[in-house]
Amino acid sequence: MKDQGRAKRGIPPKSEFNSWYPAIVEIADLVDKRYPIKGMDVWKPYGWKTMSLIDSITRSEMERTDHLEYRFPLLVPEDLLEKENRLVAKLKAARDAGVDPSELRIGEEDAGFKKEVYWVKHGGENKLDVPMFLRPTSETPMYNMFSLWVRSHADLPLKTYQIVNTFRYETKQTRSFIRVREIHFFEAHTVHKDEETATKQIEEDASIVQNILNKLCLPNIISKRPLWDTFPGAWYTTAADVIMPNGRTLQVATYHHYRDQWAKSFDLSYEDENGDNQFCHQTTFGMSERLLGAIVGLHGDDSGLILPPAVSPIQVVIMPIATHISDDVLVYSNKIKKDLEECGIRTKIDDRNIRPGNKHYHWEIKGVPIRLEIGPKDISKEQCIISLRTGGKEILPLTDLPSSILSSLDIISEILGKRANASYREMVSQLPNSTISDGTLTFKEPLNEGIVYEFPFDGNDADAEILEKTSGLTLLGECEESYKEPRPCIMTGKLTTKKQHLAKMY
Amino acid sequence: MKDQGRAKRGIPPKSEFNSWYPAIVEIADLVDKRYPIKGMDVWKPYGWKTMSLIDSITRSEMERTDHLEYRFPLLVPEDLLEKENRLVAKLKAARDAGVDPSELRIGEEDAGFKKEVYWVKHGGENKLDVPMFLRPTSETPMYNMFSLWVRSHADLPLKTYQIVNTFRYETKQTRSFIRVREIHFFEAHTVHKDEETATKQIEEDASIVQNILNKLCLPNIISKRPLWDTFPGAWYTTAADVIMPNGRTLQVATYHHYRDQWAKSFDLSYEDENGDNQFCHQTTFGMSERLLGAIVGLHGDDSGLILPPAVSPIQVVIMPIATHISDDVLVYSNKIKKDLEECGIRTKIDDRNIRPGNKHYHWEIKGVPIRLEIGPKDISKEQCIISLRTGGKEILPLTDLPSSILSSLDIISEILGKRANASYREMVSQLPNSTISDGTLTFKEPLNEGIVYEFPFDGNDADAEILEKTSGLTLLGECEESYKEPRPCIMTGKLTTKKQHLAKMY
Repeated sequence: MKDQGRAKRGIPPKSEFNSWYPAIVEIADLVDKRYPIKGMDVWKPYGWKTMSLIDSITRSEMERTDHLEYRFPLLVPEDLLEKENRLVAKLKAARDAGVDPSELRIGEEDAGFKKEVYWVKHGGENKLDVPMFLRPTSETPMYNMFSLWVRSHADLPLKTYQIVNTFRYETKQTRSFIRVREIHFFEAHTVHKDEETATKQIEEDASIVQNILNKLCLPNIISKRPLWDTFPGAWYTTAADVIMPNGRTLQVATYHHYRDQWAKSFDLSYEDENGDNQFCHQTTFGMSERLLGAIVGLHGDDSGLILPPAVSPIQVVIMPIATHISDDVLVYSNKIKKDLEECGIRTKIDDRNIRPGNKHYHWEIKGVPIRLEIGPKDISKEQCIISLRTGGKEILPLTDLPSSILSSLDIISEILGKRANASYREMVSQLPNSTISDGTLTFKEPLNEGIVYEFPFDGNDADAEILEKTSGLTLLGECEESYKEPRPCIMTGKLTTKKQHLAKMY
Repeated sequence: MKDQGRAKRGIPPKSEFNSWYPAIVEIADLVDKRYPIKGMDVWKPYGWKTMSLIDSITRSEMERTDHLEYRFPLLVPEDLLEKENRLVAKLKAARDAGVDPSELRIGEEDAGFKKEVYWVKHGGENKLDVPMFLRPTSETPMYNMFSLWVRSHADLPLKTYQIVNTFRYETKQTRSFIRVREIHFFEAHTVHKDEETATKQIEEDASIVQNILNKLCLPNIISKRPLWDTFPGAWYTTAADVIMPNGRTLQVATYHHYRDQWAKSFDLSYEDENGDNQFCHQTTFGMSERLLGAIVGLHGDDSGLILPPAVSPIQVVIMPIATHISDDVLVYSNKIKKDLEECGIRTKIDDRNIRPGNKHYHWEIKGVPIRLEIGPKDISKEQCIISLRTGGKEILPLTDLPSSILSSLDIISEILGKRANASYREMVSQLPNSTISDGTLTFKEPLNEGIVYEFPFDGNDADAEILEKTSGLTLLGECEESYKEPRPCIMTGKLTTKKQHLAKMY
């Protein structure tokens, strides 16, 4: 019966994740993908509201940690980019000259993003004197202004953020929320007086990320990215990845310690307490609509979305039940709605004159955490019936209903977290045993793209390259969590507590 | 003394409005204009927060009136524009063929905006197959999707809005908030089953605009724009203008009745109750960061901004007073802050160790409605001293302080409204007497660009043209408010209650 309902609504089973995901984002009315530019979806109200609630959590974390919200222009003149390109060229030259890469830590890619940006070269019928591009991220426009704003140690730390649209000329296949060309993006950029205070900022970023992912019930892997995956110009990059049901990892947050590398390029310096000029140290921290992609992917089931209560646009949907919905039932429904809303619970009454089964399906697909039914009999018994989207029904007395509902919402968050953790544990396996001879690595059993492999690793870049080439998977980098007992590194055999993961990344 | 303080802070007197305005937006730290693209300012936190509070008022009005928030892509493929161009061409042809313009009511301009948009023709190093432009406004991208969404009468009304960045390749001189190239823009677009329900929407828009302008303490003139100022493809356009202190009018809101003109161009139709296909009727409604420009311009004074309490990021700034700020004073300050915040009052403590006079100037420039001073003597008397930014000091008992503060905030809004109304009455004058001979209009005294002229008008387009040419000013259109007693039209001499205004528009 249930399967028939699902099929009727056009939802593939979640076990076929690569069909389920693109179908559910449209069936649940988060986005419409029919806009005539690939990778630029229209956000429907339900999707946009959910994203806005995620943004609200981010904003309150930013406020708690004394970051201030700015809004920088979207367009960046090409000539500003030259500073960025000079930085990358300089760092590359230093490395080519044999400077120890662990000291330098710069990325391989072209920081200029030149190949990945959309260009604006015409205004009306005029060719512009200086071409401009649509920001892929805002280092260049921001640091240009920071160097005007920072004069003395009293101006530091400068803690800024913005939530904006960014753009990438994406040539790979696009996927809603995961790989798009107009990106709903959060970016924090901070400026500090020295390496140590910038390092403290990275620690704060780490705690902010965990606070947010915890509210979204998303277990994650924290890794220090390998050198070649480090953000251009960064000293090191830390990333949070979640594991999607198909075993692919999705990077949902990154934070970068820049030391004073960008500052030197942008003349970003300050006068210290002794009147000496010092270069600033900087960090950045980014997240995006991928957070919503992770929520959809990790929590949904065969029947549709399941939204974590913290970001569900509707936390309780009240369904008045009666052959003909009586005034009395509606009066009660409105009273319940009012009581719940006074306690900050987002509530909606669905009094449409359609079959209860259809209403049920509708809100199930949309992942509303609690459905609340009330009919004439319930009123006489001073009770109502709630169904949790995670499963189970309960009869609740109407007295003190808001606090019962709040507990139920907490229980749903807890269940989502536990389920996601259980699935996480299922998806992560030990890397199969392997042998190395003449630099050739051979696994004793074939690897599976649907699995994230963990293993002790203490090798060098060459070892890492062999691992990636042989497995066809990507290294996430040194995991923040290490083994409790030392184990032999799979490449060098040396005992180590350092952990790494190999996975197919989105 | 006071003048010296002002001059020291670099603020020109407000009587020199054209210097005062561009100076104050930077001195009060709303924006930084040094970003290397003219007309694209960086929003500083204080400016962005004020704008966000204006947006919150708009959002709550949208929620009250059952509009839903969408987010459409920024980029529009050029080929979508062809529908829009076809519409304008068709309407032009009809008019050229002699169709009564009062029946047709289309704008003169090229709806394609081709000359006013920024073009994206390159992604990375590739030339795009279809050029795209940055939305100047979203009719084209939205209506293309609406025609997929609207099928039957049950889908109507469709009430949508978004708050987004829009772009105009502006060749005139730019001014912060007033004429910019990246515009912080609000746009509502609605679809209805017939002209009558669309007209009701226009009435709702009118009430929303007044609710918002009332909260911002902005008196305004409502006019039905003349045909040549009607939005392309609209049946009629209504606009709200405020009068800036230099006598120029600033259009801060417009709402347009489209009838079914756009719908016919975008194949936007529905099946009615009888199974017949009908074209939809549409409206749009737009506002922008100009609302903030109007607030700055109308309420500020020689000493800086004065922000209406409804949108002031800080409503009360607490300044602990003592030679050395004692713990006791700080404890009290924090308690007051907590009490005020519990009542929803945005409060900040300024406990910087700088001269009280400097603090005073700082918050005066930023236009914080209430400064609250508390020192050891006040604590012993269980009182504090508040200074209203609109003038005057008061001693308030600490008991029941939040409700006293709330009343003071209301008083400030009232004073701002009254002052703005008084200045409005000063700026609007009767048009000087004139004579007409051989179609040549002569005013008996010279006109003044710093004045908005009102007068009875019942003439035709030719009369209007003569008026604009002779005065060098622009007609705002038929005023919503009419004369109580009929007066002779200044052009035709016919008795009429219809009122118009001539002004220099921004």
